[in-house]
Amino acid sequence: MVSDKPVILSDPDPRTLDLIFTPADLDALKALATVINHDAGRMPEDMVEEILPKASFVIGQTDLPRERLERAPHLRAIINVEGNFRQNIDYDHCFRNGIRVMHTGPVFAQTVAEMALGMALAVSRGLAPADRAFREGRELYQMDGNHGLGLMQGSPVGLIGFGDLGRAFRPLVAPFGCPVQVYDPWLPEHVIRAHDCTPAGLEEVLSNSRFIFVFASVTADNQGFIGRRELELIQPGATFLLMSRAAVVDFDAMIDCVAQGRFQAATDVFPDEPVAPDDPVRKVEGLLLSAHRAGAIDTAFWKMGELVLGDIGLMLKGLPPVGCKRAEPETVARMRSMTSDGLK
Amino acid sequence: MVSDKPVILSDPDPRTLDLIFTPADLDALKALATVINHDAGRMPEDMVEEILPKASFVIGQTDLPRERLERAPHLRAIINVEGNFRQNIDYDHCFRNGIRVMHTGPVFAQTVAEMALGMALAVSRGLAPADRAFREGRELYQMDGNHGLGLMQGSPVGLIGFGDLGRAFRPLVAPFGCPVQVYDPWLPEHVIRAHDCTPAGLEEVLSNSRFIFVFASVTADNQGFIGRRELELIQPGATFLLMSRAAVVDFDAMIDCVAQGRFQAATDVFPDEPVAPDDPVRKVEGLLLSAHRAGAIDTAFWKMGELVLGDIGLMLKGLPPVGCKRAEPETVARMRSMTSDGLK
Amino acid sequence: MVSDKPVILSDPDPRTLDLIFTPADLDALKALATVINHDAGRMPEDMVEEILPKASFVIGQTDLPRERLERAPHLRAIINVEGNFRQNIDYDHCFRNGIRVMHTGPVFAQTVAEMALGMALAVSRGLAPADRAFREGRELYQMDGNHGLGLMQGSPVGLIGFGDLGRAFRPLVAPFGCPVQVYDPWLPEHVIRAHDCTPAGLEEVLSNSRFIFVFASVTADNQGFIGRRELELIQPGATFLLMSRAAVVDFDAMIDCVAQGRFQAATDVFPDEPVAPDDPVRKVEGLLLSAHRAGAIDTAFWKMGELVLGDIGLMLKGLPPVGCKRAEPETVARMRSMTSDGLK
Amino acid sequence: MVSDKPVILSDPDPRTLDLIFTPADLDALKALATVINHDAGRMPEDMVEEILPKASFVIGQTDLPRERLERAPHLRAIINVEGNFRQNIDYDHCFRNGIRVMHTGPVFAQTVAEMALGMALAVSRGLAPADRAFREGRELYQMDGNHGLGLMQGSPVGLIGFGDLGRAFRPLVAPFGCPVQVYDPWLPEHVIRAHDCTPAGLEEVLSNSRFIFVFASVTADNQGFIGRRELELIQPGATFLLMSRAAVVDFDAMIDCVAQGRFQAATDVFPDEPVAPDDPVRKVEGLLLSAHRAGAIDTAFWKMGELVLGDIGLMLKGLPPVGCKRAEPETVARMRSMTSDGLK
Repeated sequence: MVSDKPVILSDPDPRTLDLIFTPADLDALKALATVINHDAGRMPEDMVEEILPKASFVIGQTDLPRERLERAPHLRAIINVEGNFRQNIDYDHCFRNGIRVMHTGPVFAQTVAEMALGMALAVSRGLAPADRAFREGRELYQMDGNHGLGLMQGSPVGLIGFGDLGRAFRPLVAPFGCPVQVYDPWLPEHVIRAHDCTPAGLEEVLSNSRFIFVFASVTADNQGFIGRRELELIQPGATFLLMSRAAVVDFDAMIDCVAQGRFQAATDVFPDEPVAPDDPVRKVEGLLLSAHRAGAIDTAFWKMGELVLGDIGLMLKGLPPVGCKRAEPETVARMRSMTSDGLK
Repeated sequence: MVSDKPVILSDPDPRTLDLIFTPADLDALKALATVINHDAGRMPEDMVEEILPKASFVIGQTDLPRERLERAPHLRAIINVEGNFRQNIDYDHCFRNGIRVMHTGPVFAQTVAEMALGMALAVSRGLAPADRAFREGRELYQMDGNHGLGLMQGSPVGLIGFGDLGRAFRPLVAPFGCPVQVYDPWLPEHVIRAHDCTPAGLEEVLSNSRFIFVFASVTADNQGFIGRRELELIQPGATFLLMSRAAVVDFDAMIDCVAQGRFQAATDVFPDEPVAPDDPVRKVEGLLLSAHRAGAIDTAFWKMGELVLGDIGLMLKGLPPVGCKRAEPETVARMRSMTSDGLK
Repeated sequence: MVSDKPVILSDPDPRTLDLIFTPADLDALKALATVINHDAGRMPEDMVEEILPKASFVIGQTDLPRERLERAPHLRAIINVEGNFRQNIDYDHCFRNGIRVMHTGPVFAQTVAEMALGMALAVSRGLAPADRAFREGRELYQMDGNHGLGLMQGSPVGLIGFGDLGRAFRPLVAPFGCPVQVYDPWLPEHVIRAHDCTPAGLEEVLSNSRFIFVFASVTADNQGFIGRRELELIQPGATFLLMSRAAVVDFDAMIDCVAQGRFQAATDVFPDEPVAPDDPVRKVEGLLLSAHRAGAIDTAFWKMGELVLGDIGLMLKGLPPVGCKRAEPETVARMRSMTSDGLK
Repeated sequence: MVSDKPVILSDPDPRTLDLIFTPADLDALKALATVINHDAGRMPEDMVEEILPKASFVIGQTDLPRERLERAPHLRAIINVEGNFRQNIDYDHCFRNGIRVMHTGPVFAQTVAEMALGMALAVSRGLAPADRAFREGRELYQMDGNHGLGLMQGSPVGLIGFGDLGRAFRPLVAPFGCPVQVYDPWLPEHVIRAHDCTPAGLEEVLSNSRFIFVFASVTADNQGFIGRRELELIQPGATFLLMSRAAVVDFDAMIDCVAQGRFQAATDVFPDEPVAPDDPVRKVEGLLLSAHRAGAIDTAFWKMGELVLGDIGLMLKGLPPVGCKRAEPETVARMRSMTSDGLK
């Protein structure tokens, strides 16, 4: 018996279909297409070889070199559900043959943006150290516990990187009436201005802002671009939030600055994860520590399925996808591959 | 030599003029009026008696029974700079004689609102316990550290009390797209709706919301109105934030519920402050502890001066004050006097 | 048979109860109080004299000199439903005796604000003259019909007067990203800043703005304060909108300026209404004419009842009113009485 | 002497470079590339043939069949400055060879969105007919002139089409607190919901809304999809705004409905432009007529240059363009070519 339904090769490791689809969305996907799924680790080679020739879509991070792609005549799209682009696909072949390559990274934008605002308020109001002090019987009441703390309202905010994360964050800070400067060398100024932000250089953002949010991706070119010299431009008492990737900053210099009381910081990412048990970062005052937790929330994973379902539905109607992030010929090779889970 | 300038009796204890005015605002006030100030504790009786007959304004919490007020023929306004109304003034005399009585409480609204949002995000994302865990070498990475946590985006929010605090808070949560229910028996429904909120009963707010913010003042009538029965209506996993006064809730019942894991909470206020060293509240998991720190920020105090300066300026031009909170004949006697500093 | 219900003397001429209350709201009011109403013109003197001694509330513009008020021992509030304060009440007696005097003017704020934005966009895009041209067969297509027209987005906006009207208008223009300057000598600067506007002098507002909205009330002091000299500060091509009262501007000078092509304008108010049939204002190009229609919409009248019902409900619970506008001792005598219907 | 600068073939007819670039932006473009421009009508064939082999970019609507494209080995992008995609390019060749094809249509989104809001307010408040009446001496004052008119605040709004126009419009209506339904069969529901709108069917949008905005593009498939049957679903007294293309609606049926007083309307587009002198549409009451003027504003044209400059700058840095609208393989052939100026 033959089905006319398009075939989806589903190889979502390290996710599973149940993690990324609600039951209703998965049913909807199965109504659109025959989903051949392998959830227990990466799909075996022979299974890939068998399904790929029939597949219209790949969901997952399957290796897709040119030889394989040439055996996939029906393939219309490859959707990475880690939220990044790996260097295991022949992108050039895909671009030349109208195979869309996309990822579901945008689902984490709101999750990270809320975390960023929460961490900024927590640091600037001393929530975590005050809670620790209270638990240890050394809390300070009222003004005594608030020396040097300030409002977010009206404070200059700086964003470093203005992709999905920065754009999800921008509206959250709007009711605080903060002037927002943005440093993003990948964007023309009119895009930044269209989001009610002011384009600025990196040094300007660092030296002007009371709250600095690092939302930049890591590329082959920008590792460590926020070095010690740049960090020393930050105002005393400012709050520095490292939300995207540890590699964009000189992490040791950042920790030094915080340990010396130059500014306060919060970080969700570390150069090596897990952090070593005796890493001195664990003892730094003025630092809010978060173990790569900004993105990985259950409800965010379900939005992955929503994007995938929506875009496959559109493509099957002869329409372009709109939810997932597309690989771009100019940049896909520059993005550093993820070593761990690709959340960021 | 005689000055025609109006006289201000300034008795700001437990504040000082330097705390509540920026130097520029204090200069501006002195250009408008002769400020006779006593900063070292409450103004002595004889000094009050000497100045009051000449005074057009009182800044502070000076006792003003009828006998005194009758000796103050020029008095136009009394401005409490604690942010409350004490029962040491003959309000009826003031109302009958066109003496405005006001306080500067509105300055704390933004400060508390930002703290409330920060605490809500901190609790719902586990920021303080995760930081503690990290410091103790037992942090959990990524999804392992996020079980059961959720976004604020789209979550039902409930506000209990919709005065200055609730109204300062409402816009901060707007970009999260949350439906907001409000319980406030002191307001007609049209006022609540005009702020893009839905009027609701107390039980409805408690049982529907993922985030519940208590912003209600304490009156003679509403002590403990959020009792154990009401607290047990709260959804598992919800976040409860006690921002205004401990007395509006059955505090022990609230702590029990959190200790049992029914819901999470944050509190900035306690039935007795300072909290006893051995109070078990210090050990409760799922509770974010803050030592009455939501309001008392330096920059908020300076806004007090801004309100006072603005309103005295208006009154001297023959205009009504607009910045300070006015005593209302209907309610001034109901508001519970503060025992400590009156921040809330 | 005796009712314990409080009595409302209702004398709403030139309104009627059916105009200002929805049926449901009127029922709700009657559940709270015994409403003794006279709809056919002003309530006769003897009827007033009979009801007033029992009345807790007056709805309407009834004459209330001291002699009458002294015969009204239960009176708690007088609510004018024209939306203004007349000089036919002994305000001083009311203030001294805790009788609240209020009006329902705030209901027109949204109505006028929407009209103001509509008129601004209509003038700046030439909607009315283009429609006339089209009807007369002389329309110009595309760019030919748009010479000199511009966007509101990012344009400097100036507000003259920042009471209820200005505050209802401010959010409507927020998504256009306009810097907004406000001239209002009745307000301290911090109030203006709190609404994301910049305080400015009258000349500054006139000379800087592409869109100028006049929302100022008329008082004994400010008639004609926008004179010819001030009008000549307006930029060529700017749009001037007279929304509140004709008397605040030198109306003839304004018409001259528009007729000479200095700037464009819209006006909803005129020095004498109805305007004389041969008044040359009817022929001025670049002027959008509206016959005092900004406020008087059915649904706005129903909101009057909502305010009245809400505030009477609060007062009967021992709470202060919050919806209606209160008379202020400092200013009530300054507000110019309305000659016509008091809408503004 | 040889320049290493990339070459731009500029053939912007019916625009000119001076129309679409500010002097500063044109200078900036010339600093990046050698611009070979032909402004006096379409670039002659032989000039195209000469320049194309050297060109990295084409600005304009030059015919580019495969034979030509094959002679353009350096070509990286073709940017249409009419704001549409014509069927005079071999898109397939472009997609297969990494030549980006884009248009500058997004620049008109804000311009049309403001016009749409202005027309909606103008129609719903009767601004144009009231102005005409005033000029003819038959104006009606206050309530007499407002029968049946209503507020936008809280009114159900329906958007048909949610591309650039709809998304530029959505924020403008946000402060009015309207529930917004969107019909757009090209979008998954999550995209619509992410803009705080509710996805809905066409009939639902038409029958539920007080304000209906048509922002849909014309494709080969959707001509006349809003037919008489659909139009008759519209509520009495609603306001219907045709902002995008006349061909999406049964125009005669729309005019009939308005002439019969079923609903009010405004239209910026007509099946044939210019409209015939004796077309009865010119006399219809309840209709606001605009001669294809929603987009063509000077400042919008300058934004074209801003997009072009920004995107060429990015591509020269090895980055993907972000400002212009990209042709999509799935849809580029479906978009109906423009007969006139391509503004919409």
